[in-house]
Amino acid sequence: MRVKHKKWADPLIAAHPEMIVTEPEQVKGHWQDRFTKAQPLHLEVGMGKGQFIIGMAKAHPEVNFIGLEIQRTVAAIALKKALAADLPNLQLICGDGSDITTFFDAHEIDRLYLNFSDPWPKKRHAKRRLTYRTFLAGYQEVLKDQGGVELKTDNMGFFEFSLQSMNNYGMHFDGVWLDLHNSAENDRNVETEYEQKFAAKGQPIYKLSAHFN
Amino acid sequence: MRVKHKKWADPLIAAHPEMIVTEPEQVKGHWQDRFTKAQPLHLEVGMGKGQFIIGMAKAHPEVNFIGLEIQRTVAAIALKKALAADLPNLQLICGDGSDITTFFDAHEIDRLYLNFSDPWPKKRHAKRRLTYRTFLAGYQEVLKDQGGVELKTDNMGFFEFSLQSMNNYGMHFDGVWLDLHNSAENDRNVETEYEQKFAAKGQPIYKLSAHFN
Repeated sequence: MRVKHKKWADPLIAAHPEMIVTEPEQVKGHWQDRFTKAQPLHLEVGMGKGQFIIGMAKAHPEVNFIGLEIQRTVAAIALKKALAADLPNLQLICGDGSDITTFFDAHEIDRLYLNFSDPWPKKRHAKRRLTYRTFLAGYQEVLKDQGGVELKTDNMGFFEFSLQSMNNYGMHFDGVWLDLHNSAENDRNVETEYEQKFAAKGQPIYKLSAHFN
Repeated sequence: MRVKHKKWADPLIAAHPEMIVTEPEQVKGHWQDRFTKAQPLHLEVGMGKGQFIIGMAKAHPEVNFIGLEIQRTVAAIALKKALAADLPNLQLICGDGSDITTFFDAHEIDRLYLNFSDPWPKKRHAKRRLTYRTFLAGYQEVLKDQGGVELKTDNMGFFEFSLQSMNNYGMHFDGVWLDLHNSAENDRNVETEYEQKFAAKGQPIYKLSAHFN
């Protein structure tokens, strides 16, 4: 998602160190300290404007959630919403998560979400896709044993790639949905902004739930 | 596929023991003897009226093909076409392939095709689906090491199930296509009768190519 730079973004982020972390390397291994309760920790890589992670934090008070976003203006939009929601089980990160192991200790995370990630459709950009094996290796390290990954996308090519890449990496599939919004699984689905707009067009949303062995 | 019983079916099958095998248990381990040349052996489980396996045999003279069909009338329709095509690298079987290991020796087959198999949509019938783990175990036994399975279907639920089942069994995905007919992979696609009719409606054809480790 690309958005225009807003000049209010940086000051808002700077004013809320209790809600958004800009130097996540320094919190590595201590994320639970930023929440009121220590409980399972779920991470969304690429939270965009935050609708999903805020919705999940509301729906699951028994879980601590972290939303990570690389773009400052986008992270600032999510921050605005997160401040309004005022949830004790939600923290945000503005930073480049391309090497997730610099932000989190081994086995620090219980579950990881990838929602509508950039598909990088050109073959020469395959290494940038968030389900490329180098990224999977990072997720595996920061996730607990048997830790799960949930992926949603509307991009057929990215989903085909992800099915193959995650299978080839040795991940175990717990569920595959080729039309999430017309399946029973949708009852517990929390939508992203993008998903909400996209699904209105009637095109399928794909979902994969898998875990590392 | 269900078709009305035709009274010419049984006599036609009986008249062509050189082309169609009705007691495949007796050929177990000796399939290559039924071809003019010993060369890689590919098997289609559920050939229907035979358009795919005949098309493959024409396109790939360097491979020996076997088409297996349980329904006698359907097998007889395929037999008619096979006789007309007169291919030295094609053999048919009329028989119940639910335990494929009774028909083929271990490692006798190089590649196996499942095209538009009955999806058995009801959950209580999951064990009848040709990608249920008991069937996969049979394929693994009759296939050579690293032997491949190619699956095509138009049925979303069956494809979701197959992706999960084949992943969970430990198979390695070589390719996933969620809209085969609009992909580059389609250039080498040989269509089944069903596929030809179905694709005309514009709904996607799914394909998975995978191998056992």
